[in-house]
Amino acid sequence: MPLLTPAAAILNIGVAEFALSPRAHGATVLQLDWRPPADGDRDLGLLLARLEDDQDDPIGARVSAANALAVQRILSARPMLVSVRPAAEVVPGLGPRMILHAGPPIAWERMCGPVKGAIIGATLFEGWADSPEAATALIESGALTFELCHDHGAVGPMAGILSPSMPVVVVENGPGDTRAFATMNEGLGKVLRFGAYGQEVLDRLRWMADTLGPALDAALGLHGPVDLRTLIAQALQMGDECHNRNAAATSLFARRLATSIVRAVPADTAIEVLDFLAQNDHFFLNLSMAACKSTMDAAHGIDGSTVVTAMARNGVDFGIRVSGTGDAWFTAPATVPNGLYFPGYGPEQANPDLGDSAITETRGIGGFAMAAAPAIVRFVGGTAEDALGYTREMQRITLTRDADFSLPPLGFVGTPTGIDLRRVVETGTAPVINTGIAHREPGVGQIGAGIARAPLACFADALRAVGRQLGLGGTS
Amino acid sequence: MPLLTPAAAILNIGVAEFALSPRAHGATVLQLDWRPPADGDRDLGLLLARLEDDQDDPIGARVSAANALAVQRILSARPMLVSVRPAAEVVPGLGPRMILHAGPPIAWERMCGPVKGAIIGATLFEGWADSPEAATALIESGALTFELCHDHGAVGPMAGILSPSMPVVVVENGPGDTRAFATMNEGLGKVLRFGAYGQEVLDRLRWMADTLGPALDAALGLHGPVDLRTLIAQALQMGDECHNRNAAATSLFARRLATSIVRAVPADTAIEVLDFLAQNDHFFLNLSMAACKSTMDAAHGIDGSTVVTAMARNGVDFGIRVSGTGDAWFTAPATVPNGLYFPGYGPEQANPDLGDSAITETRGIGGFAMAAAPAIVRFVGGTAEDALGYTREMQRITLTRDADFSLPPLGFVGTPTGIDLRRVVETGTAPVINTGIAHREPGVGQIGAGIARAPLACFADALRAVGRQLGLGGTS
Repeated sequence: MPLLTPAAAILNIGVAEFALSPRAHGATVLQLDWRPPADGDRDLGLLLARLEDDQDDPIGARVSAANALAVQRILSARPMLVSVRPAAEVVPGLGPRMILHAGPPIAWERMCGPVKGAIIGATLFEGWADSPEAATALIESGALTFELCHDHGAVGPMAGILSPSMPVVVVENGPGDTRAFATMNEGLGKVLRFGAYGQEVLDRLRWMADTLGPALDAALGLHGPVDLRTLIAQALQMGDECHNRNAAATSLFARRLATSIVRAVPADTAIEVLDFLAQNDHFFLNLSMAACKSTMDAAHGIDGSTVVTAMARNGVDFGIRVSGTGDAWFTAPATVPNGLYFPGYGPEQANPDLGDSAITETRGIGGFAMAAAPAIVRFVGGTAEDALGYTREMQRITLTRDADFSLPPLGFVGTPTGIDLRRVVETGTAPVINTGIAHREPGVGQIGAGIARAPLACFADALRAVGRQLGLGGTS
Repeated sequence: MPLLTPAAAILNIGVAEFALSPRAHGATVLQLDWRPPADGDRDLGLLLARLEDDQDDPIGARVSAANALAVQRILSARPMLVSVRPAAEVVPGLGPRMILHAGPPIAWERMCGPVKGAIIGATLFEGWADSPEAATALIESGALTFELCHDHGAVGPMAGILSPSMPVVVVENGPGDTRAFATMNEGLGKVLRFGAYGQEVLDRLRWMADTLGPALDAALGLHGPVDLRTLIAQALQMGDECHNRNAAATSLFARRLATSIVRAVPADTAIEVLDFLAQNDHFFLNLSMAACKSTMDAAHGIDGSTVVTAMARNGVDFGIRVSGTGDAWFTAPATVPNGLYFPGYGPEQANPDLGDSAITETRGIGGFAMAAAPAIVRFVGGTAEDALGYTREMQRITLTRDADFSLPPLGFVGTPTGIDLRRVVETGTAPVINTGIAHREPGVGQIGAGIARAPLACFADALRAVGRQLGLGGTS
């Protein structure tokens, strides 16, 4: 006969305070962390119910099929780095006096410091003005056009400024029939993407256009396309999450391409290029972003799909795009990431969340793959256990796991992939974004790194738009 | 008032069967996995008691101080890769017709297949014979001398064969005033270290001597010494344990040295060298081993120290050296590692444990740092949780943790470092070694990888020798 009877335990669901009294009297209470769906918003809750997968309901069946197709397109993507070309030559629709920027749309007047600084820098780099003052006057005259990277198949970290003379990496995803573009990573310190536009910044951009771009393009011509999916998969086994940590992917890339670089260009040039790749642990970031953009564009534009295909920030607004709602952006104010600051800096100097780099999380790496990169908590804050926790948490809001992007510390399960608007709204779980933190003044550069959360309001708005698109007009 | 009373539990120490009856009657039994020290060997147990740290006892104080010094020498080591030179030029005491091999001493007749094959290969490579038959006859005539890598400051993976014309990496540990040497890694497939001696093996060795060695030496001359401790520390954050997995360290090394290679040699040569580094994920293994050898040699030869300074295998015998017992080897039969086999192979074809590469575990990386490399379980067997478990288990038998070699998945604690003979004997916990598995026939190559355990008998014998050295003769 047992010496003990099983515990007469209490299960408390929701408000934790209800359990205080029984617990005080010695009861064993299991607290279930539960909130009503959509944080108790009745209309959203009803809309969610209508949009659930349901083969017996025309709408439920349509959403289910659309999401299955979106997931299939994400998982079957094979982004290949094929060339490095001047943006004017390859980026579709890029006008001769057009500058692309990160995030959702924003007018010059509302732009944050780093974006304004980077636009001034691009204006100087293009030779459209010969001083910052002249550049500002030109911009304010309306002579330049600003459009979104995301509208031109491109993505850019931080300010994300892309102008016609800049070289861009060209990534082709054959199965999805998509192409994506990104400028190349400049390294740390005074760089355009943080809004710096001094002579050293312009000189580096000139070298990248005249030397680095053509050299890598020639090397790729000899080497053949580089399979970025395989490189990312390898790097995820080597402590990178391919957003804020790219040391392994950059090393693998540089080591693989070194021979072709030496074959392709004179030794002096090869030395400069190899040295640049050796000094910049973030070089792979922009390749990772372009790979993710080409992947998510393949899943974009599927009627009825609730899969998020872009998350992007312009330093003022945070915006998302959803597969089923076309080019519409759903925005909310961008917030300052929660993170660690370099010595001498703090949150009061931080710009709100900035850049297209959240395309990595949209694809299921970056913050979603933090479990792969426990060492990164030294950079963004938290513990190694937190890194596992972020990945586990993101399972709640994603449709699948990408078995090719397997995470050794979690027993080789795949990264959570395919953010489902419905699950974000239902659970109130905001996507986690592993990001750099920019100084709010142009040109100071990176002052820290941390974890940002996508604002939930974007997702609720997007869900309502999906509802309207599916004829559920009464639920707005 | 509590609804429950605390469990009236039973604590059972040692033999688990004693708890069967109470458990069958419903008792909650906590089983404590306990064994008597030294597995109940009375003499060893008494010896252990005499050798414990004890400031009030001359012997205990002496052992304590000796081990503190050994630990200090390990932690303060700064192994730097300074050059790549022909072995005859730099390896002390290497005679003109001498061949060095891995592990403890062994006569030609008792050597395993891979070691015999590699010795035949080295004899052909040196031009001492022009056929395998002539090489064998020459060897059996006694015209060649065989000595240990470990006796010449060298280490070699698997067969560990080192002959005068081979280029070796030279690693200097300034603080310890030690130098260590290792041949360079040939890659996978048909290679000398697994006992192959065909023309492609000899051609590769010739290329390594004529091209790779001089090119890397020239590159190092331009670059300056490479800090291997820092490289290992970085690689431990990138999924390497620097024994069986070296992809990150090799990539970091190749990327860092690429510029200097291009500067140092003609483009054609640079292309060959960069291509070789790009194709061989294990290139860093031999650098890791030389770094560990230079570190552990600094901790060797301290009277009274119970720190293990070498673990090495010749494919027949497993041997250890201990800081306080000089050049004596304590050996036991080598066993076949427990691991995963490549398709078509199994344990029946496996050679018993082979090579000097266990110097990495002796230093506290390799199997001791498995927590850093959860992805490796796909190669050696087990789960990601097992990888953490090995590192945790090795804490029981080590004197310290190396904070510079921090392990992100374990909350950034350092690798367990400084194997203490006393703890191995007391707990019966054998050091874990993460190793490749060679085919027992020469030249077939690697057929798997797995986990080996050092035989406990070596450690008991070594402990008795420490006792004798300290005048505790009565304990056999």
